[in-house]
Amino acid sequence: MEHRIRLHTPEGTRVLTARTGDNLYQVLAAARVGMEAPCGGKGTCGKCRVTLVPAGEAGAEEAALLGEEALARGERLSCRVTVNRDLEVTLKTAASARIMTAGRDAFTARCPYRWEQVTLPLPSLEDPLDDESRLRRACPQLEIPYPLLKELPAVLRQAEGTLSLLRRENRLLELAPGKVSRPLYGVAVDIGTTTLVAYLMDLQTGATCQVASALNPQRPRGDDVITRMDYARQSGEALAEMQALVCGGIGELLERLCAAQGIASREILSMTVAGNTVMSHLFAGIDPQHIATVPFAPAFTRRLTLRGSDLGLAIHPQGEVELLPHVASYVGADIVCSVMASGMDQQDALCLMVDIGTNGEMVLGNRETLVACSTAAGPALEGAHIRCGLGGVEGAISHVTREGDALRLTTIGDAPPRGLCGSGLVDAIAVLLEAGAVSPAGRMDPDEGPEAWEDRWIFEGRSAALRLTGAEADPPIVLCQRDIREVQLAKGAIAAGIEVMLGQMGRSVEDIAQVYLAGGFGSFMDKRNACAIGLLPPQLQDRITVIGNGAGSGARMALLDSAERERADALARRISFIELSACPDFQDLFMEKMAFGEEE
Amino acid sequence: MEHRIRLHTPEGTRVLTARTGDNLYQVLAAARVGMEAPCGGKGTCGKCRVTLVPAGEAGAEEAALLGEEALARGERLSCRVTVNRDLEVTLKTAASARIMTAGRDAFTARCPYRWEQVTLPLPSLEDPLDDESRLRRACPQLEIPYPLLKELPAVLRQAEGTLSLLRRENRLLELAPGKVSRPLYGVAVDIGTTTLVAYLMDLQTGATCQVASALNPQRPRGDDVITRMDYARQSGEALAEMQALVCGGIGELLERLCAAQGIASREILSMTVAGNTVMSHLFAGIDPQHIATVPFAPAFTRRLTLRGSDLGLAIHPQGEVELLPHVASYVGADIVCSVMASGMDQQDALCLMVDIGTNGEMVLGNRETLVACSTAAGPALEGAHIRCGLGGVEGAISHVTREGDALRLTTIGDAPPRGLCGSGLVDAIAVLLEAGAVSPAGRMDPDEGPEAWEDRWIFEGRSAALRLTGAEADPPIVLCQRDIREVQLAKGAIAAGIEVMLGQMGRSVEDIAQVYLAGGFGSFMDKRNACAIGLLPPQLQDRITVIGNGAGSGARMALLDSAERERADALARRISFIELSACPDFQDLFMEKMAFGEEE
Repeated sequence: MEHRIRLHTPEGTRVLTARTGDNLYQVLAAARVGMEAPCGGKGTCGKCRVTLVPAGEAGAEEAALLGEEALARGERLSCRVTVNRDLEVTLKTAASARIMTAGRDAFTARCPYRWEQVTLPLPSLEDPLDDESRLRRACPQLEIPYPLLKELPAVLRQAEGTLSLLRRENRLLELAPGKVSRPLYGVAVDIGTTTLVAYLMDLQTGATCQVASALNPQRPRGDDVITRMDYARQSGEALAEMQALVCGGIGELLERLCAAQGIASREILSMTVAGNTVMSHLFAGIDPQHIATVPFAPAFTRRLTLRGSDLGLAIHPQGEVELLPHVASYVGADIVCSVMASGMDQQDALCLMVDIGTNGEMVLGNRETLVACSTAAGPALEGAHIRCGLGGVEGAISHVTREGDALRLTTIGDAPPRGLCGSGLVDAIAVLLEAGAVSPAGRMDPDEGPEAWEDRWIFEGRSAALRLTGAEADPPIVLCQRDIREVQLAKGAIAAGIEVMLGQMGRSVEDIAQVYLAGGFGSFMDKRNACAIGLLPPQLQDRITVIGNGAGSGARMALLDSAERERADALARRISFIELSACPDFQDLFMEKMAFGEEE
Repeated sequence: MEHRIRLHTPEGTRVLTARTGDNLYQVLAAARVGMEAPCGGKGTCGKCRVTLVPAGEAGAEEAALLGEEALARGERLSCRVTVNRDLEVTLKTAASARIMTAGRDAFTARCPYRWEQVTLPLPSLEDPLDDESRLRRACPQLEIPYPLLKELPAVLRQAEGTLSLLRRENRLLELAPGKVSRPLYGVAVDIGTTTLVAYLMDLQTGATCQVASALNPQRPRGDDVITRMDYARQSGEALAEMQALVCGGIGELLERLCAAQGIASREILSMTVAGNTVMSHLFAGIDPQHIATVPFAPAFTRRLTLRGSDLGLAIHPQGEVELLPHVASYVGADIVCSVMASGMDQQDALCLMVDIGTNGEMVLGNRETLVACSTAAGPALEGAHIRCGLGGVEGAISHVTREGDALRLTTIGDAPPRGLCGSGLVDAIAVLLEAGAVSPAGRMDPDEGPEAWEDRWIFEGRSAALRLTGAEADPPIVLCQRDIREVQLAKGAIAAGIEVMLGQMGRSVEDIAQVYLAGGFGSFMDKRNACAIGLLPPQLQDRITVIGNGAGSGARMALLDSAERERADALARRISFIELSACPDFQDLFMEKMAFGEEE
């Protein structure tokens, strides 16, 4: 039986249809409502909350997560709701995310494609050579693919002598009668676990013509790579669904890029794709499940060259999609690209590159040696596992400063605050630390904080939470003890990873001449506060350079120049991956680095 | 509106449905009734004759072609009938054709495919290499195509150490856990204008495992290449239809071969296809229309390598289909293959190869030089344009001998005589010539023939026809003056072609050491009679060797050995094509060679 679902969101009201027995979260996900659900619909993260009319009975899980009051208001977890009636669904969040797309904007291009004009006499009784041989007589060595051979007889005769060829070295890509010459386009894509970014590039000038971004449509299946691998491993259909989701999302970005530029998508001659190893497997429809379990072996790491049609992408029929190479399961092409964008692999001085996305990956080295490691540091800093955490979407508190006794909050889009994103979280903790409201060990301490904050404290059994928003905000946005622990785990892992890499190279923090911060979080984060809470070594505060979306920049470099693709291949082989879980020192360093400082 | 068509054929009764306005001939063709219609449904050949109830009005064209009596019996040309009522349709002919499939049966094979076993340790924390690199470490240089990369993670883990690979040089074709080894198969196809023949070959031993043949399903669109090109040029859909017809026919042959051998069609690893230039264009879906008009330029002549999936053939997913190369528009891969099968290109002595199929093609030469030409000689010798002509199907008179004053007829399948096929036609003319009933100039002369034949003569205005069947046969099968003229045109063209080629090489008939006869007609024809009527030079009667289906043999040689494919490529370039219509001598020689001998 079919049911009407009236859906109210900040963008307006839509009507969806669903069948009896459908899961409401899946219905909303399919409608691309863009809800956040880090747990992938398992009823544990509480982020798929909606208000329902009629609300219906809530299960014990929902009651525990949402609390009496919310239940009474008709709030439910959409992932726990089975549709069996017409519904009014209200969603408070919207999905307009702030996605880091910036990076370098112009690159050196070495375009392998070119338009060429040839003059071909038509066949005659004296010279009755077949059409293909006729063309190859004018262009020796030309390889004419089968679909173009089909076009050749008609085009040759329309051409009346003058023919234009688009070729890539000896390979023919297009045939047209008369004199034709068009700009030549390619697209570089950064597939993040959270976001997709696509750049339309002029392959001849190296200019970035258009940029488009979107949330990764796989997100309803889980916020992190582990949850997504878990989903994909269930069946061939689940894997195919994950591939279709990301390919569909990229297809939509291509459409937007082309519409903005006023070109047809078949004018896209080539693509490069930088993603982490799991995203790359899912994009290619190759089972990543063995990445999830010891010994974490991926199916492939080398650069993979596919056709647009393999992926359902409507680019040029002969267009190739290059999936850039990976170092290991947890150091993917996105990191290889960030290294390329930073140029650290060509420097004499010791450099550190840190990319805190959904995971936290780091590379240390220079032109001689490069080592890398990965930590599960990211999710907290992207708002996951944080009570009032939120991705970088409108209404997220992105910065917190203290002005006297007041807390000043900055939100994305200057919207009323709806939650706390990574950069706001780092700021908040730095402010609390500085004010003494959090001890160097990471314990919230109402007695040591400013007296004026007295009414901001909320006591929850043995621990405390601090209300960040004004008294009027309902619900209030708070920072709780567990949030601080989550950040400590993240920053402890990153700091310990840096130490392990330094140890392997026999160097110390002071030897690091440059720190490159890649990724959205790195770009929006306050460097001083990041150093204050020990997320980055405080000694390096003045040596930090933000490189923005390094994955996107590297993917563009690789798109524009085959030498850069070879550089990526070489880097993927050269960078040695350190599996932290197999390092004897790591656990001790990790424990040691969790504290914000030494207890006085 | 829908109508029921009850169809009675020698095989039984079927019910078809048609819509108001459908053409009856097309309905029958779509139902694969296998009717002969050399004109392609234009109402001019009279071969699509059926008996209709209710018969309805006949048009002037039908009346002229069929005659009063036949009309009265309810006979109509199905191509002139528009369905607007339920019908009873009776068809006298059936489509069980005698197709030449014989040739050589075992060939030298050099198989590029092989099964290989490898032992691969599973990944471990000490050796966490990705699956693909792990396989390539064991098999350096191995190219792993994308679809197999998708299978790799699962197969590797099922394999528990031992893995079997099917490879063609460095290219991986199949992956299987454990120890696997299977015979390796390929298929060679001869696409004739009239018939399709397919051979299932063991690629390792070179043995012919199975043979299957069928009529070319394009025949309802015309019996000769010109009519088919005419049809295909109408629109992209018509071209696609012609491609689908022949690919569908070949697909059915593949199914039959595989069923007979008990294998799956995806076990077919490669295919070679020999066809004339037009058939090859239509098979590839490449517009052949410019072959039909001066200067007769084809779209391509070189060997074309396609995928099974390009053609809708369900062979091995990586299986390649090699369309063997052509010399020119009217000397195709079938002739290149017949040259290979004859071995004339490797002999010192001067050899002549003659293939009389739907066209008549000839090659003259030896290891030094090879020239070729083509004449529109064939159709008459395949029964087209002959009043009682019939292809090599059951009931066709295949041989005629004179015993005293009686005529002894041999039919295919010993069935009651239904018409005259090429070999019977040659015999009949030789018998009449010998009996004096046809003059050396080709005129039927009742006065000079045996007196006992008096009641066999039928007078038709100024010319005569001879009844071949006994007085009881109804309708009688006759040989008429126009039939003899048709054969004279064919044999004149062939003889003149041979003279032109000899002239170009500065040689004479006596220099020819060997004559190779390729094709079905050449195999069934009585050599003595062929020489008696001057279809072949009488001096060469004892130097004639029948090679059977040379196209099929050459296609098998090319399938089994890449050196033979290269030989085909070299031959396609080496054989020089003579366009007879552009030869000044040809017309005179043609006129001269039409007579059966010198008038006494």
